[in-house]
Amino acid sequence: MTENLLPTSQLLLNMKSNALLKYISNHITLTPEEEELLLSKVRVRKFLKGQYVLQSGDICKYINFMISGTLKSFHMDNKGNEHILAFAIENWWIGDLGSFTAQKPADYTIQCIENCELAQLSYDDLQILYTEIPQLERFFRIIIQRAYVYFQRRIIDNLSLTAKEKYLNFIKQYPLFEQRVPQYMIASYLGFTPEFLSNIRKERSSGSKS
Amino acid sequence: MTENLLPTSQLLLNMKSNALLKYISNHITLTPEEEELLLSKVRVRKFLKGQYVLQSGDICKYINFMISGTLKSFHMDNKGNEHILAFAIENWWIGDLGSFTAQKPADYTIQCIENCELAQLSYDDLQILYTEIPQLERFFRIIIQRAYVYFQRRIIDNLSLTAKEKYLNFIKQYPLFEQRVPQYMIASYLGFTPEFLSNIRKERSSGSKS
Repeated sequence: MTENLLPTSQLLLNMKSNALLKYISNHITLTPEEEELLLSKVRVRKFLKGQYVLQSGDICKYINFMISGTLKSFHMDNKGNEHILAFAIENWWIGDLGSFTAQKPADYTIQCIENCELAQLSYDDLQILYTEIPQLERFFRIIIQRAYVYFQRRIIDNLSLTAKEKYLNFIKQYPLFEQRVPQYMIASYLGFTPEFLSNIRKERSSGSKS
Repeated sequence: MTENLLPTSQLLLNMKSNALLKYISNHITLTPEEEELLLSKVRVRKFLKGQYVLQSGDICKYINFMISGTLKSFHMDNKGNEHILAFAIENWWIGDLGSFTAQKPADYTIQCIENCELAQLSYDDLQILYTEIPQLERFFRIIIQRAYVYFQRRIIDNLSLTAKEKYLNFIKQYPLFEQRVPQYMIASYLGFTPEFLSNIRKERSSGSKS
């Protein structure tokens, strides 16, 4: 049981990182040495509800894997309105990828909706890992590919669905978000005012009763 | 001059594929053997204006690199309305990535706006190439990452910009599209009716004269 020889902080990190390794193993197979190298670069960090993981204008230094919690990424327009781009919960990746890959100031802000625990990989460490563990190229290619397809779908939904269809689509696709995210944030994500979303929900609930 | 020994079709393929190899070399360095292997899997195909590269409901078997021409990808909603997701010109990649990666029926249709010449890589061949040339994982990770950032930006623009801002943003970002794509298609891409776009353009042109 070599694990018992590890310092407590290392044990804790390994436990927290299990979720990350398990997630990665769905896509690629790492050797124990590669897993160890990867974990040596991971920093597990806790954030409180309301806290910022990234603020627009800062450089996105970390790509984040969600161990627990809920957060949102949003863009603030010139008039101070918040436009929510995405929500994330356990087992999702989050970051401002444009800022992260170019290491330039972020367009988006990432803020915790609940207390969160994140496994973070820094830009510099990820470049090292890409060289040391080339399979990670494949892993991130697959992950980003999936996120791309999701955004592609969202653009088409925005262009082709009615407001009510957009909402029904959202709660069907992401039932957990509806439970864990305040309604006014869902409204922002869908591009509605909170009042408009409230009306759709009322209409739907009276429709389902009749 | 070993090239002279190649059959004419092979010579032609090599010439056409120069654009592809040049593009790839911006991101990764392939050995001559790897380039040869890659080219052996590439099929160069011509399409006429109006022809379909992919029709929704069919499986997207090829990922396409544009050697020349202009095309559009769009989604047809239940009411038969066309919603344009993207345009592509020389040096762009195009395909229905969701359909291609899962080898399931496509949600999108890809149609030529001008005569087009495409370098095509089939799904099966790309899986072989990923194994034989692991660096291609890196290449496609970078390409898809860039496309992802572009879509992310587009979603935020959709949520946060006024109609006029969306249009001005589009012609600033893609001046070539404005020259090569009919206005009613640009309207569809922006989520406008053709009349609405025409009004914005008139307003802009009278504004610039005053």
